[in-house]
Amino acid sequence: MKHNEIENFFKGNINIPLYDLNTANKAKYRQDQLTKPIGSLGKLEELAIWMAGWQKKLTPTIKNPYCLVFAGNHGISGKGVSAYSSEVTNQMVENFKKGGAAINQLCTLANIKLSVIPIDLDKPTRDFSEGKAMTKKEVFTAMQLGFDTVPSNCDLLVLGEMGISNTTSATAISCALFNEPVTPMTGIGTGLNKNQLSKKIEIIKSALKLHGKNFKDPIGILSCYGGREIAAIAGSVISARLKSIPVLLDGFICTAAASSLILFDKMMLDHCKISHLSSEKGHSLVSRKLKMEPILDLNLRLGEGSGAAIATLILRAALATHNGMSTFTNAKVNTKIV
Amino acid sequence: MKHNEIENFFKGNINIPLYDLNTANKAKYRQDQLTKPIGSLGKLEELAIWMAGWQKKLTPTIKNPYCLVFAGNHGISGKGVSAYSSEVTNQMVENFKKGGAAINQLCTLANIKLSVIPIDLDKPTRDFSEGKAMTKKEVFTAMQLGFDTVPSNCDLLVLGEMGISNTTSATAISCALFNEPVTPMTGIGTGLNKNQLSKKIEIIKSALKLHGKNFKDPIGILSCYGGREIAAIAGSVISARLKSIPVLLDGFICTAAASSLILFDKMMLDHCKISHLSSEKGHSLVSRKLKMEPILDLNLRLGEGSGAAIATLILRAALATHNGMSTFTNAKVNTKIV
Repeated sequence: MKHNEIENFFKGNINIPLYDLNTANKAKYRQDQLTKPIGSLGKLEELAIWMAGWQKKLTPTIKNPYCLVFAGNHGISGKGVSAYSSEVTNQMVENFKKGGAAINQLCTLANIKLSVIPIDLDKPTRDFSEGKAMTKKEVFTAMQLGFDTVPSNCDLLVLGEMGISNTTSATAISCALFNEPVTPMTGIGTGLNKNQLSKKIEIIKSALKLHGKNFKDPIGILSCYGGREIAAIAGSVISARLKSIPVLLDGFICTAAASSLILFDKMMLDHCKISHLSSEKGHSLVSRKLKMEPILDLNLRLGEGSGAAIATLILRAALATHNGMSTFTNAKVNTKIV
Repeated sequence: MKHNEIENFFKGNINIPLYDLNTANKAKYRQDQLTKPIGSLGKLEELAIWMAGWQKKLTPTIKNPYCLVFAGNHGISGKGVSAYSSEVTNQMVENFKKGGAAINQLCTLANIKLSVIPIDLDKPTRDFSEGKAMTKKEVFTAMQLGFDTVPSNCDLLVLGEMGISNTTSATAISCALFNEPVTPMTGIGTGLNKNQLSKKIEIIKSALKLHGKNFKDPIGILSCYGGREIAAIAGSVISARLKSIPVLLDGFICTAAASSLILFDKMMLDHCKISHLSSEKGHSLVSRKLKMEPILDLNLRLGEGSGAAIATLILRAALATHNGMSTFTNAKVNTKIV
């Protein structure tokens, strides 16, 4: 597989689109004419304006939302850091394909096109407590795959993942990236007991000792701690950015994957929203570090893109009101007395 | 208008349905078989189980959701407690009828049938800082109207309101009901400035001095401080309860209206959820007092049922996953290792 675009991107050879402040300001003006007290639709107003700024359209749309669920297997699974065995990744991919998982129901409800992309499930990454998870070439390949998977007609990218043990990978990435200690960052994942959690913490600590916390680019950190699905997510975030497509990140793993890109450029996540605050322990800390406020807080910790699919419903509500409401003038409703 | 049912209800002559714990437990068992770590869908799981318990169905449905938006005018508006004049209530009702308001767009999005019920808009309630807002007969009439408006085939009741100055009414009700001081309970409503807010606080204080805080039944408190739309909301909550229909309350005003019923029976809101935490100041305090955790927090303060309509999307997500997901056995996915 070629990875020209990704390599070119990291060489700084590709122009990175920015938020269109002019359209966003026009959208804000529109909001203030609608038949409601100014600001009374709260987050819905902010989301509609944000969508307008990225889609560069006064009345943004969600006509072609795509949910990409990347799946990968992790060598570190052999260390017993998850309550489930690695083969569950493969079994869940089958479940996605048959339509039986949470993300299937949620994509149907929110009218999102779902693609499931298993990446070399028979080739788990190396146990990163013993060596680098992937070669740089493997990282590039997975990133390019994620990059290539974003459809060009997509107007909202909804990201999810499946990979037994990938909270361990996401925790290590987050600790390294934000120079944070391991214990407050490490959660129960799919449901560890107290002893298993202690073991997971020790393994992550030893991995951080092995590879360190000092990384200068996304490729380096992903090579040490990443998974193929995590690298693919980062690649798809880049692809969306180059097309000015707004992105909904799911929970802890998607956020960690995307946040690796701030090593390249601090503004690389401006086109992304964290869809929900996961109940996985590290997510609130990482969200605060990124200064990104999650849209929802529903105590989810499933992954698959489930929270991002649900947040799509909130974005739809934001656009329905932004695009569909009458103005005070059109509806002949009096404005404020004073 | 007759008000036999409401009077009968308050005489204790009508049997009040309870939550069906047996069906709820079966729904919980079902949740634990679905292809996800137990509890990983967080609030969605709780909501699906709650719906099952009230609909008395293992797989609850939202096939006939109705949004009722009650509108009323308030004599206290003459005291300048709102940023808008009373005629805006009538103008917004016209806007609802023409489909131009936020609630129209949100009901269309969430596939909810919308009914707008203006109640005697040309007869504002009396200025309650000078006397009782309504006679007991007027309260009964408005409650019965709300009671009668709930369709018998309704499987989810979504409640909203419109009434310039009705946060003033809701604030007075909440202060009296929970014996709370006025200032921490009083918010800016549709958007008061600092001076206007101080004036609103003084007017509510004087009204509470006039009528007191000690009420033994919903009729008494609604007669002193209520509005017709507020009494109608309380009536519709009773009607839903007698039919075991789950209810989504909108923000501060709906919550205040419904909470008056705890003077009759502490369990009268068990079939209700607060759909969202309004940014109107008193709502978080009232929600805590009621020990009811709002489903969403989107910084809304519009009313109309807007937050309740949005929360319907979350309920739909809860039921889509609860009803549609495969079990571990059916999908041939391995359960936990230990």
